[in-house]
Amino acid sequence: MDKEFYNEDFNADPDANVIVDFKVIVPKGNLNRVYHEIPAESSVGTWQRVAAMTDDILRKLSAKTFQVEKLSDTEAKLKVAYPLELFEANNIPQMLSLFAGNVYGMNSLEYLRVNDVHIPNELINTFPGPAHGPKGIYDIIGIDQGPILGTIVKPKLGSPPDVHAKTTYDAWRGVDGTSGITWVKDDEPQTDQDFCRFEDRIGRVLEYADQIKSETGRQVIYAANITGSISTMMKRADYVVDQGGKCLMIDVVTTGFSAVQHIREQDYGLPIHAHRAMHGALTRHHDHGIHMKVLALMYRLAGVDGIHTGTIFGKMGYGKIEEDKEEVLSSNKKLMGDLGNMKQVIPIASGGVGVRNIGKIIDALAPHVVITAGGGIHGHPDGSAAGATAMNQAKDAALQGVIEDDALLQWAKDNEAVELVKALTNQS
Amino acid sequence: MDKEFYNEDFNADPDANVIVDFKVIVPKGNLNRVYHEIPAESSVGTWQRVAAMTDDILRKLSAKTFQVEKLSDTEAKLKVAYPLELFEANNIPQMLSLFAGNVYGMNSLEYLRVNDVHIPNELINTFPGPAHGPKGIYDIIGIDQGPILGTIVKPKLGSPPDVHAKTTYDAWRGVDGTSGITWVKDDEPQTDQDFCRFEDRIGRVLEYADQIKSETGRQVIYAANITGSISTMMKRADYVVDQGGKCLMIDVVTTGFSAVQHIREQDYGLPIHAHRAMHGALTRHHDHGIHMKVLALMYRLAGVDGIHTGTIFGKMGYGKIEEDKEEVLSSNKKLMGDLGNMKQVIPIASGGVGVRNIGKIIDALAPHVVITAGGGIHGHPDGSAAGATAMNQAKDAALQGVIEDDALLQWAKDNEAVELVKALTNQS
Repeated sequence: MDKEFYNEDFNADPDANVIVDFKVIVPKGNLNRVYHEIPAESSVGTWQRVAAMTDDILRKLSAKTFQVEKLSDTEAKLKVAYPLELFEANNIPQMLSLFAGNVYGMNSLEYLRVNDVHIPNELINTFPGPAHGPKGIYDIIGIDQGPILGTIVKPKLGSPPDVHAKTTYDAWRGVDGTSGITWVKDDEPQTDQDFCRFEDRIGRVLEYADQIKSETGRQVIYAANITGSISTMMKRADYVVDQGGKCLMIDVVTTGFSAVQHIREQDYGLPIHAHRAMHGALTRHHDHGIHMKVLALMYRLAGVDGIHTGTIFGKMGYGKIEEDKEEVLSSNKKLMGDLGNMKQVIPIASGGVGVRNIGKIIDALAPHVVITAGGGIHGHPDGSAAGATAMNQAKDAALQGVIEDDALLQWAKDNEAVELVKALTNQS
Repeated sequence: MDKEFYNEDFNADPDANVIVDFKVIVPKGNLNRVYHEIPAESSVGTWQRVAAMTDDILRKLSAKTFQVEKLSDTEAKLKVAYPLELFEANNIPQMLSLFAGNVYGMNSLEYLRVNDVHIPNELINTFPGPAHGPKGIYDIIGIDQGPILGTIVKPKLGSPPDVHAKTTYDAWRGVDGTSGITWVKDDEPQTDQDFCRFEDRIGRVLEYADQIKSETGRQVIYAANITGSISTMMKRADYVVDQGGKCLMIDVVTTGFSAVQHIREQDYGLPIHAHRAMHGALTRHHDHGIHMKVLALMYRLAGVDGIHTGTIFGKMGYGKIEEDKEEVLSSNKKLMGDLGNMKQVIPIASGGVGVRNIGKIIDALAPHVVITAGGGIHGHPDGSAAGATAMNQAKDAALQGVIEDDALLQWAKDNEAVELVKALTNQS
């Protein structure tokens, strides 16, 4: 094989190439082969030389492995450069079909992981990106910055609209109208089932949002899950706009990139809250699939304003996964770092959040983050309003640097944060 | 823990429950725990009991693990029943967000695989399904049944529209106008790049399709890759319709379920050819992700008319993966088996197809299959027309029961199939 597809002397210009970091695991003896085959399969190659292939095509459009870090006889990390000319402007599916498409099925590989991607600004700036971003969201709420607390109504499915809406109101309100949380979201499989119709639920919820505003002047947010077919999503978005809602939620993995971008393009004037249900099928196995930070980047291009990237305490809150911290922080960097003309995306931390760990999450992820707690709020011995107040108290403590359990309880006692004291002494 | 979420005595009515087959791999000691947690997390559970949870919700809406096959201390296969009430009609993203969503991130698991799903007809029949199916496709071509041969123009990217279109024409035509193949498709990352604009390419190609029809009376098919944002896809579909095209191709994984269903709902009158680029990120690791047959079922519900499911010889044709045969056959069963009121979906076999293995593919997958060869046609020593004729000759041999290499060469000589002789004696 020659140097068409593998050349460590190739100087990959980052302004003219999309650069993808792969990790490969291969059957013994295949390493050198896949250095050629991955760029060939994902650019201009075929498994047999054909008449229409020209030197010109090879020179201009070949992707190239230009850096190899061999980890063992069967594992390596590769950097592959894809000339910009291979990509269509403003087309996320095409980009993924190119560098993260058929390569996953190559027989010469056992497993393939896409760990990172660099995209030149020339291509970045063809995508819409977020319409609002963190700043737009802070403007809606009427604050300058800082962590935004939120909740998911629990149980995640089953409550009728009235109960669901009243629970939402309690969490917004807290015990006194001003000490509650700001952001409430539907759960990811909650759309429009018989037990809780979309319009009944959202209509009731948004009446309560108006009530909060007239009672306390606070603008609260409800992220209404519009997930469905395109026509369904548009109908639901129209309803949310009509009812004065302030946020649309989409299950971005299961609906897909084209759907997300379509909702972005409609310019409803509302931020898009991206739930990532099913991402773990792609991201969790560290030898295969795609790193969460790559998905985070793609959803930023597509135009979401906030997306779940984890809490640093493991995705579901049943325990800790240490490596998650790197995953969360690197994903958030993709959301908040400089990226062409794109606005930023606010990270959303969710899953197992409680009064005992919210300080650590704020410490790691603030200032710009939405943190949502479900059971950690609604499981308070005195109910959702007290749970929301307690969570807010824990946030205040964290912003004053009080994070560890013992200090937090002492802080709560000293500051007469009775809801937090009760949460800390009653919750397991 | 009680029997709310795990009960082996539970009688899961297949008419009233979606039933999902999971394989779990867990850290030692967690097996029993995940029998409860998987159905809890993917139905009405939360990690902490909350006030709004009622016995009524638990009774009506709890998902339940009702069958366990323990494989070791850390591995098991589970069957979990999800009451129909949890699902919204005609909403694939919601269905996946429910049973294949957050569960992939649970900390109590190491890996999770969705291996199969049963959906009751009551839910199946809320989806559109294919508008055409194999019968509709055969009607367009004007044949009754049988394997349909096709090709992908190679190189996969880089040829200008004229070269691309002429290669397509050669493959349709064969050496004599009637011995070519029927179906030509864009490659999955080929959309609308500078080197080959969509309208230039498709316009030229469809002129040649008209020419074939006027020369020989044959109706040939070009699957035009409309992959992109929703507005882009609709614009491209309109163009294909205007130009008299007969098929739309979509990269169904990278665009996503909502996009696929949206194109189906537009009723363009053309079958949808589904390319599955990136599926391997979800399907390939047998310990994690989702089985191809589950995706095949979902895309049938969404309304594709044909979808790639593999060749039985490994996904890329660089060798063999034995287990692929089960994967391909079980996926094809989801496409072609009875399913409520749904039409069937024709399987498409692609990747490394050549004259030496097409007989084995026909033997395994016929009668209803589209088989596309790229390098296997365009790599013929005498070019694409001869390659197409040779492939068709190999098909004829296979339909007469001649499949093995030696017998095939003898058959080619006996039948004066000179293009096939040349392909067999010159190709590696």
